Formats: sequence, C-alpha cells, structure tokens
Amino acid sequence: MQKVLTKQVLVVGLGLIGASFAKALKSNGICERVLGSTRSDQSLKKAIENQVIDWGSNNLQEAAAQLKEGDVILLATPTLAVPERLAELKDVLMRGVIITDAASVKGDLATKAVQIFGKMPAHLILGHPIAGSEKSGIDAADETLFKNHRVILTPTAETNRDSLKKVAQLWESVGAIVSEMGVEEHDRILAATSHLPHVLAFSLVDALAKRSEQRDIFTYAAGGFRDFTRIAGSDPQMWHDIVLANREAILAALDDFDKSLIQLRSAIDTGNSHRLLQIFSEAKTARDKFSAQLAEREKNSKPHKRN
Amino acid sequence: MQKVLTKQVLVVGLGLIGASFAKALKSNGICERVLGSTRSDQSLKKAIENQVIDWGSNNLQEAAAQLKEGDVILLATPTLAVPERLAELKDVLMRGVIITDAASVKGDLATKAVQIFGKMPAHLILGHPIAGSEKSGIDAADETLFKNHRVILTPTAETNRDSLKKVAQLWESVGAIVSEMGVEEHDRILAATSHLPHVLAFSLVDALAKRSEQRDIFTYAAGGFRDFTRIAGSDPQMWHDIVLANREAILAALDDFDKSLIQLRSAIDTGNSHRLLQIFSEAKTARDKFSAQLAEREKNSKPHKRN
Repeated sequence: MQKVLTKQVLVVGLGLIGASFAKALKSNGICERVLGSTRSDQSLKKAIENQVIDWGSNNLQEAAAQLKEGDVILLATPTLAVPERLAELKDVLMRGVIITDAASVKGDLATKAVQIFGKMPAHLILGHPIAGSEKSGIDAADETLFKNHRVILTPTAETNRDSLKKVAQLWESVGAIVSEMGVEEHDRILAATSHLPHVLAFSLVDALAKRSEQRDIFTYAAGGFRDFTRIAGSDPQMWHDIVLANREAILAALDDFDKSLIQLRSAIDTGNSHRLLQIFSEAKTARDKFSAQLAEREKNSKPHKRN
Repeated sequence: MQKVLTKQVLVVGLGLIGASFAKALKSNGICERVLGSTRSDQSLKKAIENQVIDWGSNNLQEAAAQLKEGDVILLATPTLAVPERLAELKDVLMRGVIITDAASVKGDLATKAVQIFGKMPAHLILGHPIAGSEKSGIDAADETLFKNHRVILTPTAETNRDSLKKVAQLWESVGAIVSEMGVEEHDRILAATSHLPHVLAFSLVDALAKRSEQRDIFTYAAGGFRDFTRIAGSDPQMWHDIVLANREAILAALDDFDKSLIQLRSAIDTGNSHRLLQIFSEAKTARDKFSAQLAEREKNSKPHKRN
C-alpha cells in the first residue's frame, strides 16, 4: 500500500502529461485529493468522468484557493504558457504551496521566474518528465506513462530541499526515475537528444513533401522511414513552443550535427571507403549501446527507487 | 495450393534477404527445388539444417551448373559484390537462365552490367525488395519478410517481358507488391526515402557520441530518440556499399534536405513563430498521411495481387 505523500495535488493543464500524472496519482492513492484545472470545460468533464481527477475547475484561482501549505501544483500547460500561470499563482506560492512544472525547456522558464518573483522562489521546483508520445490530449492519458521514464529536476541554490524531495517522491510514486541537474545542462542535453532529432525529422518530411515527383515518393518508403519520422507526427504547437524556448541550445546542437554531417558528406563525395565504414561502425556501436541501456532500464521495473 | 512457378531457383548470398526469400519459396512450394550458394560453409550448413534451401554449394559455378533455361537466380550478396557475381555468371545468363538481384541501388549495377555484357542482357531483371531490418544474417531469416512489402523492378527496353513477368510472379508468390520504374527514378526515390534518412541517423548518433559531456548524454534519451536512430543500428558494411553505389542521388537528396533545414534553422534563429508552426504542421500532415497509407498497405493482406 502506497503511503500518502501529500494531501492535495492540483494539476494545471489536462493534456497527455497532466492527465497521465493525475490519473497515476489517483489510481495509486498517492494523495488524498487530486484536483485539476483546465480552460476546456469538455476536458474537465471528461477528466472527472474518467476518474482522472477528483475535482476540477476552469478557474485557476478557484482551484488554487483549495490548496494549503505543503500541497503541490503541477503546471502541465504548453511550454510558453507556463510563465503566465506562474505569475497568476504568485500568492499561492508565497503561502508555502509547492509548484513544479513539466515543460521541456528549463532555462527560459527559470529566467522568467526570476523576472516575476525577483529571485527563484524556494518552493518552485522546475522539472521535466522525459515521457510522451505522438498522441496528445486527455484521451491518451495513461497512468503508466512515467513508469521507468526519467524525470529531471533542476534545483538552484535557492531551492527548499524538503520541497524538492516531495516533488521527487511524487514522481517516483508514479514509477519515474528522478535525476537532478543544472538548468543549462538540462537544456543542452535535451536539445541534443530530443529537440534536434525532432527538428531533423520535421525538416526531412518537409523536404520530401515539397518534391514534385510524378509518383508519390512516400509510396516507396518503408518501416525504417516510418520509425525515423515518427516524431514528426508530434504536436506542432508543442514543438513550436519548445524550439522557441530553447533556441540557443538547439542552434548549438544543430551546429554540432552539421559538423558531423559535413564530414560524412565529404566521405560520400570523395568515395572515402575507410572513413565511411568507420563512421557507420562507430555510430552503430554507440546506438546499440544506447539501445541496450534503454532496454535494461525498461526491463528493471523498480519504480519508487531513486537514483 | 500455390502453382509451381519455376523449376529451380538459386539464391546467391544467404544473408537476411537471400535466406528469407529462399525460405519463403521453399515453405510455400513455389518451385521444385531451392538451391543456395554462399562462401560461408557455416551459413550453408545452417541453411540446409533450417530448411531454408534444398541443396547448396560454396562454389557458385557448381551451383549454377545445375540450372536450366527458365530457372532463376537471385543475387542477394552485398551491393558492391553483385557485378563480380554477375560477370562469373555470364555463360549461365547466355543460356537462358534468368538473373535478378536484390541490391538497394540500381544505376551503378546497370552501368556495370553494360560494361560486362556490352548491353543490358534480356534475361537480367534488376530489382529491389524494399524490406529489411536492423537484424542481419541467416539467423534472422523470415519467410514473411516480404509480405505486403514493395519490390521495385527496373526493366529497360532490352528486357525480355516473359522473364520480367516470371521474376515479378516469384516476388508476388512470397507476398510482395511489385512495381516497375526506371533505374534513375528508383535510385532518386530510394536516396530520398531510405538512404538519406540512414545518413542522417548515422550522422546524428556520430555527433552525439563525440560530445564530451560529463554525463552520458544517451542516459537521458528516450523512446522517440530510439525510434529515430533505430536505422543507425543497421549493418555498416551494407550502408557503406549503398552510399558508394548511389553517391550522386544521395548527395542531391542531401542538398534538398539542407535547403529545408536552412529554412527551419532560420525560422528558429529569428523566432519566426508563424513559419515554425507552418513547417511543423505541414510536416505532421504529410507524415500522418504517409503513416496511414503504410498502415493500410500492411492491413490489406492481399499477397499475390499485382498493382
């Protein structure tokens, strides 16, 4: 039986991430009451019907007024909307309610939080669950979404350690593996492993869709192409927000990628057999190693264990 | 009951493609006898033990000597080894044995065939099954590998239509959907939908593996990254051969991609919100359409039907 970690959790934004988190908390009895807030009355209705939340309101202030010191808010709205919600919750944060978020970019948000509050508030715990799907919305809510997935928290010197611990425990209670790192390191790593691949996938599909072949070029694409471009099926608005929020780190990652691509292009152009085999072999080795790591992580079903 | 299409088929090269084709022919009773030839005694032994072929030899001439007019050879060796095998089979081709192949690039091979024979031989049917996996070798042999997968044949004015028809029927008999197109069109389309994505995936993994992060960057990569880089786990030697054989078309596809990437990069750099949303939305629409087409194709289990 899971121990109750906190009395109330309010999830703001009931898309895939928010609804999955709420549903996981509720179904595992992690807190006494799971509240939800979203502007869409339809999502709110569905969230209550589908046992995603216990209570909801389309009015954020009304929902936040229910919370007491030590309760937790997860902001799971679109990335660019987080600072605005944060500003609206200034009073709530000041009276000891813990706020965390799920945005994919942390530096942009940290800067805006300092603008809003004058400094990083002690009970604001910035975080990022590395989980998702090309599906979106409350209908895709999945209480196992975070199981064995990484959640990165990015505390600062101002962060209250008890609040940090509580947020970490909440994520662990839904099966996530929690790590801590600095805001900049987070954004640099995510730019490389997530944002850049999305940019490349969107760009490739864009390039192919523009070609004026007599035959539909996609007719002859197969499973490998489908896997490679799966992430180009992700929500355009979400990715619009992410690339704008993490512009500099993404451009730096693109530059790194360009250097590798120029070298590979040159090896193709000059027919440098040895170099081609070397690049492909090293990439395969690195990819196989990563793939084995990920498979191991998914196999080791040890939720609630911090590392 | 499947009608016997041809008396004997000899499969040269018993890797994933060759062994899967042989196994599918044999298990469906498509021909009276399935022969195999490969230099590896171990693969040959395994092929016979695993019911992949009826008879095999590590000596290509010995194997080819068994064939009569109207029998078929599939060359399923690595791409760059095909011309050499073809030269060794000159006499066999001249006495009416049909030869086809499974190499991923057709232009390079067509040029070499003309060099070897003086012109394109009537019974040489160049072809390409668009099927595969990051697995390789005879152990990965799968008799359903070609089911609902495309096979492109690239006949020329010199091609004997009966031989073309027989090769098409053989592929259809193992469940493939056969199309015809010109050699250049084939190489251009495959460069865009298959070779370019592989180059990008190898290049991305290469770029990330080179980064000297304190933490292992792959630790924070998730399922989207795994799918995107799956094709970078493919056989390095095979992709070495393919990029060398289809150099020009791949460089042209890379140029096209670069144009799209430069536009997207500029939209990120200048924070062009409208343009970003447009590119991502159009790419998602194209990708979703492709994905639906592919799902439809895989659902419609109508093997043996030509389109």
